[in-house]
Amino acid sequence: MTDELSTLTRKPHRGSTDRTRLDALLDDEMVATLSTVTDSGEPWAVPMLFARDGDRILFHGSTGAGALRHLAAGAPVALTVMALDGIVVASSTFDHSANYRSAVVRGVPETLTGDEQARALDVLTDRILPGRSGEVRPSRPKEWSATAMLALPITEGKWLYKERTGGPGASEEEHSAWTGVIPFGRTAGVPEPAADAVGPVPDSVWSLVAAYKAPIPPASH
Amino acid sequence: MTDELSTLTRKPHRGSTDRTRLDALLDDEMVATLSTVTDSGEPWAVPMLFARDGDRILFHGSTGAGALRHLAAGAPVALTVMALDGIVVASSTFDHSANYRSAVVRGVPETLTGDEQARALDVLTDRILPGRSGEVRPSRPKEWSATAMLALPITEGKWLYKERTGGPGASEEEHSAWTGVIPFGRTAGVPEPAADAVGPVPDSVWSLVAAYKAPIPPASH
Repeated sequence: MTDELSTLTRKPHRGSTDRTRLDALLDDEMVATLSTVTDSGEPWAVPMLFARDGDRILFHGSTGAGALRHLAAGAPVALTVMALDGIVVASSTFDHSANYRSAVVRGVPETLTGDEQARALDVLTDRILPGRSGEVRPSRPKEWSATAMLALPITEGKWLYKERTGGPGASEEEHSAWTGVIPFGRTAGVPEPAADAVGPVPDSVWSLVAAYKAPIPPASH
Repeated sequence: MTDELSTLTRKPHRGSTDRTRLDALLDDEMVATLSTVTDSGEPWAVPMLFARDGDRILFHGSTGAGALRHLAAGAPVALTVMALDGIVVASSTFDHSANYRSAVVRGVPETLTGDEQARALDVLTDRILPGRSGEVRPSRPKEWSATAMLALPITEGKWLYKERTGGPGASEEEHSAWTGVIPFGRTAGVPEPAADAVGPVPDSVWSLVAAYKAPIPPASH
């Protein structure tokens, strides 16, 4: 088996080796699936919050979980990110498809410790909530004992970016069906304060909300 | 390494063995990450459109891709689905988290052929666009030669469902920060007709759009 990604449909896809497209996707999305292989050779996967930090991808988890120990011991991983941008409505069931951007980044994550670990948590937090680390107290060394912060390097030749955009393509035959695209996106709702929230909704939260604004809703029919 | 999922944060999570929760998540989401292991023992993953069909999960792809041949030959997989429901804003960087529902389903996919393959395509299409298979012509046998339709059984003891809901939890210390939750969801936009679309936007499309309605947008600040 090669490293080739299978296709979502039989249509050719636009793969890209343009690192800026990879970075744009990684910066747009907040969740990824981390896949690895168990000692007994079985596939294993977990969804994760993540953030790109330059040429690496940060994520963290409990050191109590066997999986994180396995990763910290140098197991190779594949990290998958996908943005669903639309559902493509075609004139035959067979040609239905999705518009998407996807990336699979492969490599061996490095375990961060000490100051690097602390800085990485701020980066991870601020990538999701811009400026949040400046709105709260610094994290404390004792908070670190129970977690591992990992960094997966983004290495040339070890990542694959693909996307599909546009409509269903002109049909080769007469048809009498509505065809087109239903755009999709992630949307933030109204921030909901906790019972012990202090002060107004901060800039970090508004920044995240602004980045995931709702599209204009379809008119009712 | 055990099959235990690592945690997104060090907070305890609510795992559930309630099959109805698993089904609700699988029915809510349209994309999954399919993870497997290559012949050389490396982790391999690809994002996929999928649909639940009773006690199995359907997905398809090009038989030209080496990966699909590998899967068709009986390789075990882990299929990961995650719905991001919110970002949890806490009083320390360390306690930031996500609200989510996630599932990992493990097993060996079966390759469907003949009538089963044709029926599965209708099911996959109709699960995403309800009733779509009745709005277009049936798929044709020649269209099948280039694709594989796979079915992953949902087997007791081979799936894991987890979720986190609610706010950041009461802080154990005084703080002066806004805390709370930013709800997130997938949202459909206005359907965009293709150049050769015939007739009005059909029921199947409105059904999908209605299932992913935009939340009430936050007031500007």
